[in-house]
Amino acid sequence: MKRVALTIAREYGSGGRIIAKKVAENLSIPFYDKELIELAAKETGFTKDFITQTEEKKTTSFLYSLYFNTQQLPLSDQIFLAQSKIIKKIADEGSCVIVGRCADYVLRDHPNCLKVYIHAPLEYRIKRAVKEYGIDEQNAKSIIQKEDKSRASYYNYFSSNKWGVLQNYDMTINSSLGDDATASVIEELLKGRC
Amino acid sequence: MKRVALTIAREYGSGGRIIAKKVAENLSIPFYDKELIELAAKETGFTKDFITQTEEKKTTSFLYSLYFNTQQLPLSDQIFLAQSKIIKKIADEGSCVIVGRCADYVLRDHPNCLKVYIHAPLEYRIKRAVKEYGIDEQNAKSIIQKEDKSRASYYNYFSSNKWGVLQNYDMTINSSLGDDATASVIEELLKGRC
Repeated sequence: MKRVALTIAREYGSGGRIIAKKVAENLSIPFYDKELIELAAKETGFTKDFITQTEEKKTTSFLYSLYFNTQQLPLSDQIFLAQSKIIKKIADEGSCVIVGRCADYVLRDHPNCLKVYIHAPLEYRIKRAVKEYGIDEQNAKSIIQKEDKSRASYYNYFSSNKWGVLQNYDMTINSSLGDDATASVIEELLKGRC
Repeated sequence: MKRVALTIAREYGSGGRIIAKKVAENLSIPFYDKELIELAAKETGFTKDFITQTEEKKTTSFLYSLYFNTQQLPLSDQIFLAQSKIIKKIADEGSCVIVGRCADYVLRDHPNCLKVYIHAPLEYRIKRAVKEYGIDEQNAKSIIQKEDKSRASYYNYFSSNKWGVLQNYDMTINSSLGDDATASVIEELLKGRC
């Protein structure tokens, strides 16, 4: 059996995580999103809660310099490095679907990595985030924009690529076409590769 | 039968035109690329050669102002408008695949328009353009970059969108995965829609 690493970057409220899970289930491939937190906890000794709070937050240059002066990497960097190590190990072991965490960048040298970015129009994401994540409708737009900004900052900080530039991905897709339709298209992309 | 308009924007050397034609043939849908030039010739009275030279070149503001002063639109604008009218008519008549010419923007109000952007890494495009279009290998990189720039300028001039921004497209795909594989993924996107 061939080995493929499918990485999924996604805009907040696009349903990217749910679609990625569907693809993993349909193809019987292991799926990793929050599962990576548990693995990183074992690797680093930090608690899951601490990692959840720290991950996906880029380091400020001020903090960085403080830590640098003590010749120790900032905690967010330590967690990113531990997660990167885990992601590489997972991808070495067999086919996998990995959500977020700059996995496309971490696996840039993987021989069979497919990089997908899932997006959707803002209005669609607002409706979905209100319904599925229960966020406040009045503040939905600003919550989504803040979350998108945070994901972009995290990606731009830890990778040498730029978040949301189509040339970085093998495929980008608008999930407002429907979760099942989107999953089917991604599965077609993987056909013959896993 | 449902009616779908598939628009294909493509980077020079990505093989986007060939892939779009494959999709059209596999799904038995009419295909339009240079065919639009002939239709525009009939519509405007210009020769095909003249249209070929004029189309996909944006108007300079100086020329525009000169023409504007005579209360007549610049020729490139007249041709764009004629082609837009033809594109809308084609899409009204039934399913179709249309390459280039801001078709995704022209058909922005179409009820079932799927917008695809085909790209590939520069090295891949250089090899392909040298082999398939016979361009000079030494100058391939600059020819490709110039052509990409020209397509972007045309698109940015005639539409209110920006060329190559992933959120403008339902799907973007890296054609270096292979022409047949890329066509299959696009066909999966169209499934149940035409």
